[in-house]
Amino acid sequence: MNNNEITKNITELINIMKEKRPLVECLTNRVTINDCANMVLAMGASPIMAEIESEMDEIMAISDALVINLGLLDTQYLEAMKTAAKAAKRLGKPVVLDPVGAGASSLRDRVCAEMIELAQPDIIRGNMSEIRALSGGAVSSKGVDASDEDKVTDKNIDAMTELVRSFAEKCGCVVCATGATDIISDGSSVLLVKNGDKMLCSVTGTGCMCSAMTGACAAAGDPLTAAAAVVVMLGLAGERAADYVRDNGSGIGTFKVKLFDFVYSLSDGDFAGGAKIETVR
Amino acid sequence: MNNNEITKNITELINIMKEKRPLVECLTNRVTINDCANMVLAMGASPIMAEIESEMDEIMAISDALVINLGLLDTQYLEAMKTAAKAAKRLGKPVVLDPVGAGASSLRDRVCAEMIELAQPDIIRGNMSEIRALSGGAVSSKGVDASDEDKVTDKNIDAMTELVRSFAEKCGCVVCATGATDIISDGSSVLLVKNGDKMLCSVTGTGCMCSAMTGACAAAGDPLTAAAAVVVMLGLAGERAADYVRDNGSGIGTFKVKLFDFVYSLSDGDFAGGAKIETVR
Amino acid sequence: MNNNEITKNITELINIMKEKRPLVECLTNRVTINDCANMVLAMGASPIMAEIESEMDEIMAISDALVINLGLLDTQYLEAMKTAAKAAKRLGKPVVLDPVGAGASSLRDRVCAEMIELAQPDIIRGNMSEIRALSGGAVSSKGVDASDEDKVTDKNIDAMTELVRSFAEKCGCVVCATGATDIISDGSSVLLVKNGDKMLCSVTGTGCMCSAMTGACAAAGDPLTAAAAVVVMLGLAGERAADYVRDNGSGIGTFKVKLFDFVYSLSDGDFAGGAKIETVR
Repeated sequence: MNNNEITKNITELINIMKEKRPLVECLTNRVTINDCANMVLAMGASPIMAEIESEMDEIMAISDALVINLGLLDTQYLEAMKTAAKAAKRLGKPVVLDPVGAGASSLRDRVCAEMIELAQPDIIRGNMSEIRALSGGAVSSKGVDASDEDKVTDKNIDAMTELVRSFAEKCGCVVCATGATDIISDGSSVLLVKNGDKMLCSVTGTGCMCSAMTGACAAAGDPLTAAAAVVVMLGLAGERAADYVRDNGSGIGTFKVKLFDFVYSLSDGDFAGGAKIETVR
Repeated sequence: MNNNEITKNITELINIMKEKRPLVECLTNRVTINDCANMVLAMGASPIMAEIESEMDEIMAISDALVINLGLLDTQYLEAMKTAAKAAKRLGKPVVLDPVGAGASSLRDRVCAEMIELAQPDIIRGNMSEIRALSGGAVSSKGVDASDEDKVTDKNIDAMTELVRSFAEKCGCVVCATGATDIISDGSSVLLVKNGDKMLCSVTGTGCMCSAMTGACAAAGDPLTAAAAVVVMLGLAGERAADYVRDNGSGIGTFKVKLFDFVYSLSDGDFAGGAKIETVR
Repeated sequence: MNNNEITKNITELINIMKEKRPLVECLTNRVTINDCANMVLAMGASPIMAEIESEMDEIMAISDALVINLGLLDTQYLEAMKTAAKAAKRLGKPVVLDPVGAGASSLRDRVCAEMIELAQPDIIRGNMSEIRALSGGAVSSKGVDASDEDKVTDKNIDAMTELVRSFAEKCGCVVCATGATDIISDGSSVLLVKNGDKMLCSVTGTGCMCSAMTGACAAAGDPLTAAAAVVVMLGLAGERAADYVRDNGSGIGTFKVKLFDFVYSLSDGDFAGGAKIETVR
């Protein structure tokens, strides 16, 4: 499985991003905020995590992209998100939305729906349970992690693909549903990415980091390629980190450290040789 | 020092926990929230750190245990804790309380006392200075760390043991006072655990992590064994991590990484061979 | 470049600090709060990150220094900072101020100016863009990082030095402007420190960590030496960590871990042999 042209596009976009070094404003939860900032730095962009509503217009004026992570639903914080989203749309800067925990509570379902309406994101990045909850499917949530029933398998791949595509079409944006197989669609085309390792589920916030990184890439190219670039990058780094851990008999502490190392050091050749990506539509 | 039967019970409880993979809702402070989530993952459970009061009923409905860490005393946050505690008690889910910094300010003393009253925790996990402050003893606080005067020694071990036991009896729950020697009591039995390394005091939040982990084990067995299981697990991982650091001439950055590695990889044999636990009453 | 007498003073101050193990109250942002606490521990001091206004008087009574980091501008938080600053001044305990993001928004400019007025810090520690913004210069901000235009070069070193000195004179305190070359002045003397590595810019919060560490050293000696001690310590640790990363072909994940390791393990001999410090006035 590999599509050389998409891989080439991804690699180009990443190089443009590194050249531009976009400033990415992240309104994100407190659990993983440090890791999100460091991952944005590791990939070659620059993070800012300002969170006060009254400075959002100025912050968005100097930023190149906005990431809204709904892991924290504090009222004051939601107001800052709304103001930031309006500023981003007005200034033509890309918006990435992460609907953390959609399906886990009615508060989360409502806030996610409202924010999609208001922020008109360019990319929605969530796990399959979150995407399914947002698209109105029956949900079996296990908190902020994807439910086992939402794992993409050979059996359900067609249904899952169509679910993501039609939700992207409905929202008028790119939807990136991450998991062992990532499904990415702009409502028309659909890409599948199979990079990654199950150890990525043993570190909190790899989804949040993915969304923050997507902001950086969205500032450097079209949203479909941007979303794909990030899941390939994070997936490849996860594969290398897991190999390292298995070779050294260590564990998830070391895995997390090496994940940052590999995101930092992946080269064009790594993408060309390692991307597991295909177009299915 | 070892009690084979208790060690066997601990190992069984940990295996049940890993099998069940409980979802642990942690209302915890912002300093160590990421480490708490990752430690819960490392031990084989699943963390959720939701913090908005209006979703607490729904979150507790899908969670298997509640951890209340009083490191953050924000009013809004305290309300979420109260609602979560009520839901947990109503649903029969175990509650672990960490009275961070009890003795350091009158605010903390008051809030801790109120929360114990309201949450009726199944387990209170704190350092010896915090437990002494809560039990009404004279206190010499050094912020959030245990005071030197509260170190358990051969000379004061009997008095300390009785302090913990009688406080447990008064509260009607298990009390776990951690330090070089951990003292755990349900008001009747008393266990001593001597696993650990002094480097655990050189990383912020090992107490918070211990409390979060205790939530996961409390969802898998009786509170006395659950509390003991966690201090043995974290203590053993601390011993291994400290050995690694000494062998490699590194420092506390590496110690913290290896602490996660060893919590992740400890096996039944490690517990059988390494647990330093005894019943003193 | 080295001044043996200053290096000796720095080493003495660090040893006094380690002996005293000061308790440092840090009111800091949520992005880097864990790293700040762990860095204070790594250097041999003790952190506390209490943040509720009503306990600030009691917390400052048991603390040895106060660090105010303006990365988080939440109203409630600012009130706690003001109360803590008043208590610190009343009790004669040193105050370090970090004007995070000064120049990035008018809110930040205003709050920083107000806080300097109110807290009368003993030391202001910021990057050169932040110091220039505070001193009324034209600013080209890139969020929370220093702008390329504010890099200290052979060409602008005299102007930059004078800017820092005159701002220190105006504020009546020590100003420490960090970068590839750190400029530290009490309004009269000026020190330059050239320790460090550019990888320090690839980890979020090294500035915040520097400020938190400065609190610990300020509790152990005069503010000029304290500020210099910390930039030498962090710079040396950064050099060693970067060497390690280059030798091992790793990346910024490992760099961050080793940064903590080296801050933890630096010896008197390392300072004597490695400090790159000189007096220019």
